[in-house]
Amino acid sequence: MRIRDIGEFGLIDRIAAVTGAAAGTVVGIGDDTAVLDMGGDRLLLATVDIQVEGRHFIRSRTAPYELGRRTAAINLSDVGAMGGTPRWALVSLALPPELEVAWVEDLYRGLRDELGGFGAAVVGGNLSGSEAIVLDLTLLGDVPREHVMRRGGAQPGDHVLVTGHLGASAAGRFALDAGLDVSDLAVAAVVAAHRRPVPRVREGQAIAGAGCASAMIDLSDGLAGDVLHITRASDVGVRIDLEQLPIAPQTREIARRLDLDPLHLAVAGGEDYELLLTAQPGKVEQAKERVRAVAGVSLTSIGVVQEAAGGCVFARGETTTPIEVEGWDHFRLAPES
Amino acid sequence: MRIRDIGEFGLIDRIAAVTGAAAGTVVGIGDDTAVLDMGGDRLLLATVDIQVEGRHFIRSRTAPYELGRRTAAINLSDVGAMGGTPRWALVSLALPPELEVAWVEDLYRGLRDELGGFGAAVVGGNLSGSEAIVLDLTLLGDVPREHVMRRGGAQPGDHVLVTGHLGASAAGRFALDAGLDVSDLAVAAVVAAHRRPVPRVREGQAIAGAGCASAMIDLSDGLAGDVLHITRASDVGVRIDLEQLPIAPQTREIARRLDLDPLHLAVAGGEDYELLLTAQPGKVEQAKERVRAVAGVSLTSIGVVQEAAGGCVFARGETTTPIEVEGWDHFRLAPES
Repeated sequence: MRIRDIGEFGLIDRIAAVTGAAAGTVVGIGDDTAVLDMGGDRLLLATVDIQVEGRHFIRSRTAPYELGRRTAAINLSDVGAMGGTPRWALVSLALPPELEVAWVEDLYRGLRDELGGFGAAVVGGNLSGSEAIVLDLTLLGDVPREHVMRRGGAQPGDHVLVTGHLGASAAGRFALDAGLDVSDLAVAAVVAAHRRPVPRVREGQAIAGAGCASAMIDLSDGLAGDVLHITRASDVGVRIDLEQLPIAPQTREIARRLDLDPLHLAVAGGEDYELLLTAQPGKVEQAKERVRAVAGVSLTSIGVVQEAAGGCVFARGETTTPIEVEGWDHFRLAPES
Repeated sequence: MRIRDIGEFGLIDRIAAVTGAAAGTVVGIGDDTAVLDMGGDRLLLATVDIQVEGRHFIRSRTAPYELGRRTAAINLSDVGAMGGTPRWALVSLALPPELEVAWVEDLYRGLRDELGGFGAAVVGGNLSGSEAIVLDLTLLGDVPREHVMRRGGAQPGDHVLVTGHLGASAAGRFALDAGLDVSDLAVAAVVAAHRRPVPRVREGQAIAGAGCASAMIDLSDGLAGDVLHITRASDVGVRIDLEQLPIAPQTREIARRLDLDPLHLAVAGGEDYELLLTAQPGKVEQAKERVRAVAGVSLTSIGVVQEAAGGCVFARGETTTPIEVEGWDHFRLAPES
């Protein structure tokens, strides 16, 4: 049996079955971020994300500064989704010896600027030679023990909410692939969303600190795939109203030009790095106010949690369709930059 | 300017110059292991090591189980050198989709068995597709605040000591390259030292816990390179007596058969993962006893710390030669498996 036959999540199940246990593991394999207990007031958060040349980025098309910022943002988003504070990063870097030193310096400037915006910094790592560039970033953070956010707390009747907008990153990826003119304002907006996602760290902390949410995750693979991580962990169903999805006018404009369905971008495009959360009805307004206050970002109700028996569906008027994973699977979809 | 022009340590200096600062960083860039302060009784340790197919291992020659054990051991050694307790590992893995699932399961069994021997386990990570296999292991550990070992505490007059034996791993690498018969006992011994190094975690904890050592590091690059990390951090010189280096009979035997200098293997071979430490003369016997008691391993005096003005030298009888870095530089030496 080969990896492509069982896919990313099938492989994770296999890995979990042969992995041992360590004392102090609050959240382990299967989540984007491990939650670890060192015994103090705060829990340790640890997440990692790898970027492989030719798979996640193309050297000739990617400025190293932007690669650094984007890689940092992806990890920051994972810590933010736990309600945590990013602290320290380790960089593992495999590099061709003929690469320019300036390329590496620009990469670290990007890491510094993105991490520094949230009080974190690179504190160590590892260098190696290789043919293709590989950048693997480990980010450590912490969170007050009572504020850590999980995927498993959603209850029937809770609202489903999302920060910001959906689908812009995917629209930016398609715009780049199609060679659209980046001096156009709509193109520039979606390309920026793709290249430099804004991690919702302050938003996550505000929501977790106020105890507004019952479950939270960041949207990396796409709404369809990621909402199922919450429903499975919480043993609930969900009804998402497609007409409520926040889609920016620029995303709709690029979709129109490229003959794409903006709803498909919003549901399955991935890489939005927005927060998806559930909250009791009585806490929804407080959550919206907190997010607006700390970051000026909108929080939009897009559906409701229902009993598991009700299933997981997208609704549009009277029509419902089951939510199926159309998100990113690293072993089943072709690479895109 | 290209990376090969300035080498690994030149590149680290450049990286440090463009990196920001994060609160709570006790030891940052430049050490193998970051030491981080979350405010509790124990300090957090974080280290990472990357293994790239074709560079650090060759798929057809390396059993995935052994790759898992070896990668875990390399990281465990780094935590051990700080006197720390290994706790949790994150695995970042880039894999070709056509790879057998069984290969991945065997890799994780190797990680589990090696980490599990020290109470640690894999608690998370990241999966990605790629053409070449890349395995990046982050290991987190902790250490009581008052016991953390550093590189910078060596004082003139201290003894220089090393656990176990030197040069066996390099002898094993050469034996494999030369195709020596591994059913031969001497060959088997050095190949085992290369494939499955024993991380000196208990030894490191025993030394740190008893306050026997003034500085400590693990030997990954080779004695010549690694002793200079201590002398630079401590602003001292050192005189290593080559005739005192502990070299196993099997290493001498393989060196003889392959017409290699066993002293060169011991000084510059690298990948021994023994502990190199300095200790005040009055604490040497205690250190030796502790290491023998916890692990049955020898601790050998191989030299003395001297004033910086005395320089760093290898001595053999009346002859001295300056210690120069002949250790591993990932961007200057050809890859070996």
